[in-house]
Amino acid sequence: MGEFELLAALRERLPEPGPRVHLGSGDDAAVTVPGGATATSVDALVEGVHLRRETASLRQIGRKALSTALSDLAAMGAEPGEAYVVLGVPEGMDEDELLEVGEGLAAVARETGTTLAGGDLSRAPALTVAVTVVGHAPRPEDFVTRGGARPGDVLVVTGELGGAAAGLLLLEDTGLTAAAFGGADPVPGGDPRAERATGPRLDLATADALRRRQLDPTPRFAASRALAAAGATAMIDISDGLAADAGHVAAASGALLVIDSTALPLAPGVEAVAGAAGREALELAISGGEDYELLAALPPEAVDAAREAVAATGTPLSVIGKVEAADGARVRAEVRLPGGGAAPTRGYDQLRRPQRR
Amino acid sequence: MGEFELLAALRERLPEPGPRVHLGSGDDAAVTVPGGATATSVDALVEGVHLRRETASLRQIGRKALSTALSDLAAMGAEPGEAYVVLGVPEGMDEDELLEVGEGLAAVARETGTTLAGGDLSRAPALTVAVTVVGHAPRPEDFVTRGGARPGDVLVVTGELGGAAAGLLLLEDTGLTAAAFGGADPVPGGDPRAERATGPRLDLATADALRRRQLDPTPRFAASRALAAAGATAMIDISDGLAADAGHVAAASGALLVIDSTALPLAPGVEAVAGAAGREALELAISGGEDYELLAALPPEAVDAAREAVAATGTPLSVIGKVEAADGARVRAEVRLPGGGAAPTRGYDQLRRPQRR
Repeated sequence: MGEFELLAALRERLPEPGPRVHLGSGDDAAVTVPGGATATSVDALVEGVHLRRETASLRQIGRKALSTALSDLAAMGAEPGEAYVVLGVPEGMDEDELLEVGEGLAAVARETGTTLAGGDLSRAPALTVAVTVVGHAPRPEDFVTRGGARPGDVLVVTGELGGAAAGLLLLEDTGLTAAAFGGADPVPGGDPRAERATGPRLDLATADALRRRQLDPTPRFAASRALAAAGATAMIDISDGLAADAGHVAAASGALLVIDSTALPLAPGVEAVAGAAGREALELAISGGEDYELLAALPPEAVDAAREAVAATGTPLSVIGKVEAADGARVRAEVRLPGGGAAPTRGYDQLRRPQRR
Repeated sequence: MGEFELLAALRERLPEPGPRVHLGSGDDAAVTVPGGATATSVDALVEGVHLRRETASLRQIGRKALSTALSDLAAMGAEPGEAYVVLGVPEGMDEDELLEVGEGLAAVARETGTTLAGGDLSRAPALTVAVTVVGHAPRPEDFVTRGGARPGDVLVVTGELGGAAAGLLLLEDTGLTAAAFGGADPVPGGDPRAERATGPRLDLATADALRRRQLDPTPRFAASRALAAAGATAMIDISDGLAADAGHVAAASGALLVIDSTALPLAPGVEAVAGAAGREALELAISGGEDYELLAALPPEAVDAAREAVAATGTPLSVIGKVEAADGARVRAEVRLPGGGAAPTRGYDQLRRPQRR
């Protein structure tokens, strides 16, 4: 199969184009009629940098590439629209394998109502999935940016934190699952750390859920729409880590964001994994990243309605802090720890931590 | 410099955003108000696959990545709008080098009136520039697709052909320039092929122009608008090679495209380079690819006006063939050679010819 046959085979796997798509993949360009304002974001997944084929299936790689790109649109309160994908294909990867990546992309497109409207294939030294996503809203001011948080606003977060980082630990260290199951009933042939483990224990279903949090994040579109409708003044998705992403909101809003670490909703199993790995659960929740939950600022009077509306989408909403006025020097996010003091707010930096997993 | 500082430094180099851009790079997504129909295309340049740093400067790599992506918009008759760039950065590439790529991108953006509205940085095993471009038109039917060529239409091509392929030969084989200068006045220390060279000779300025055709193609926006206004029924840019791209138009239009090889406008110097390299000039023009000229179909009565309008943009327009009705079996492009017979119409296939240069 050559490039053009393969593109045709990939196209066959795609869901029907959405109503704004006038001409889909196959010409020099796709043609759409947006009919309002658009939000556009780009994201890339590179094998050996963002994930490894030892721990993620090709289908999961396809899913994650589109889900993480779409998460940026959820962070704007946008309705998902179109996606355009550049696939960099390493030598030795066969057509069936490439179609698996395509099926992962197509599945997330179907689940989120996204049209895969264009693509390009290229040779590359490592599997690369670069995704551009376009979301929609009637007017530009309907999008929720990072820059509107105001002193007095309340900080909320959807779902639970630390799960993706804990899942990564489990994926990267296969002995860790056994260790986290604990010393009382150690898994046969398990990790010696099991003998030393204290604190909460992990069970198989929870361990699976944590790995899924890492491998297959969900863009929070329904919660995002509920937050935007409730009057969110600023919003961001948690990809770099809660503290780092809160820092982005602080910088864009010119405000101080104060987060109470005791209020953070930890995903089930995070404490067990952190304990077995000799890490702090709070650290995973604060700077682990990749949970792809939403951090939003809301006027205090909007919080109750927002909590109810977000809960109706199947996701809890937790109040985790507040926005304060900042003189120039204090434009930052601060995560206050139980014993006093603040957690470091460094998050994931693509260039500084090149071989993360 | 980390990811965020570097993105900020890149942003400083960008031209002012265009009128449709409501919010540029720096938030979760860029916000635009298209106000009509959009054409969107993706393209990628990968070091070691599409170009080598031995023959292209980083600035040229940045320029070419955006120019070739924009060429797809020119092929639609679109007005250039926004571009979104994923930069994959290899280990060991420093900030200044990355900024050079950025300056190449910014220069083409400035020259074409394109807003670089978003980007993403990632580690990658080889320098990778994946570009998504968005172009505009008032209505979707204002775009010229590949699919509208009708029997009786005349085929035209802008500019000259074979130059990019000849330029590639010169770049990849440094002795070839001397050889193409010819045996009459051989360059000191020149290539032994100079002794054997017959036919037309190359001069330095022409050799430079051919290398530039390969390294720094120009998206033909002005010619594209003139062709669209003149009533072009189908249009494509010549990236894979004239014959292959004509084949795409034939397939999309369900027609037979007949091209007269004696009518092809050869770029100056192509014959000299082909002669020295032991290749056929026509082969470079027919299947060399990357000239990024436009191939269009026009109703016969529109040709004179189109030629005049395209000439006014500084680019010649040549009539090179015609569109004929096709029964099912004859949906293809055919390049008829002077001695009778037809040239093979295979073009560049990303996956079949992985290490092209």
